Amino acid sequence: MQSYPSKLLENAINEFSKLPGIGKKTALRLVLHLLKQEKEDVTNFGNAIMQLRNEIKFCKSCHNISDTETCDICANPQRDHTQICVVENIRDVMAIECTRQFKGVYHVLGGIISPMDGIGPKDLNIDSLEKKVAEGNARELILALSTTLEGDATNYYIFKRICKYSIEITTIARGVSIGDELEYTDEITLGRSILNRVHFEPLLAR
Amino acid sequence: MQSYPSKLLENAINEFSKLPGIGKKTALRLVLHLLKQEKEDVTNFGNAIMQLRNEIKFCKSCHNISDTETCDICANPQRDHTQICVVENIRDVMAIECTRQFKGVYHVLGGIISPMDGIGPKDLNIDSLEKKVAEGNARELILALSTTLEGDATNYYIFKRICKYSIEITTIARGVSIGDELEYTDEITLGRSILNRVHFEPLLAR
Repeated sequence: MQSYPSKLLENAINEFSKLPGIGKKTALRLVLHLLKQEKEDVTNFGNAIMQLRNEIKFCKSCHNISDTETCDICANPQRDHTQICVVENIRDVMAIECTRQFKGVYHVLGGIISPMDGIGPKDLNIDSLEKKVAEGNARELILALSTTLEGDATNYYIFKRICKYSIEITTIARGVSIGDELEYTDEITLGRSILNRVHFEPLLAR
Repeated sequence: MQSYPSKLLENAINEFSKLPGIGKKTALRLVLHLLKQEKEDVTNFGNAIMQLRNEIKFCKSCHNISDTETCDICANPQRDHTQICVVENIRDVMAIECTRQFKGVYHVLGGIISPMDGIGPKDLNIDSLEKKVAEGNARELILALSTTLEGDATNYYIFKRICKYSIEITTIARGVSIGDELEYTDEITLGRSILNRVHFEPLLAR
């Protein structure tokens, strides 16, 4: 058991090493780095973390994180509010936003159905999704979950709950990634990408 | 350029990504982890960091970090105050303390002479070391710096300043690490370890 020359140091190291992927050695390195910084900078660091946790809000419409009651995307009249893209978490929102290919709004489930981890439909934002769809303003629901067993189970569960409403339910295309070589692609992906082939469009023309 | 759904989130990510070895993606992962924790835990985390920076002291004798004016090692009458081990930084103090083989006191230089990084003797705690030696209570000065060009240069600089006092100057043994295979050891280390051979002592007997 490592002993530290200072309680304050030990405290800070323990706090850092609670973060995922950070062990005691890395924590020590980070803490010693902070010790070399200006007091003001370290205060800013601490405050940024506490402010984030205490003041962050979740959009009451899509459950994305936001500084306001309604997030920038839901509040934007330029976005197509009839298209709802269902994603697992806010990182997926950021990833899709980065592509600049989607002009609709999102719905963040906050997880995925996973009985192994004890996460059932009740733990996810599915009731609010059904309510939103029941209001009848939405035209298309795009399921953009991971292609895993859990993702497919969640897709199916949502489909069963939503299919009674008159809304088109789509899912993002599965296929060979750009840059991938065919011979290393798994059979299911390759099979689907042949079945769901689309009209040729040169990438450069986009 | 990635855009974030919240200023608070962006702030916290920017602060985290200033830490060494942490990029924007890792910062996002850490910040989202903190968001899931209890408010109280996050407040503790922030406070531990700020307290560390604002309240930590450096031992006025050996420059090790400490919660008090004089560190636990220097304040301990059981330690041999006539043996001073010169190290680069507080991590080296912790590493040597872990071995439980040294009962003397330390002197933390706070760095190593490195003209490439603009660090000269004036930036290190060498004046206070000379003053301590000049007081005449010390019997042995153990140089325990890294075996690099900079470490050797620093060793030599300290030797030149201290050799006028009647104090024994030693350096930690260089040799083949335990567990290393001879054929992969570099020539200089192997050469030195033959020249500086010691009487055989079985490891198990220790």
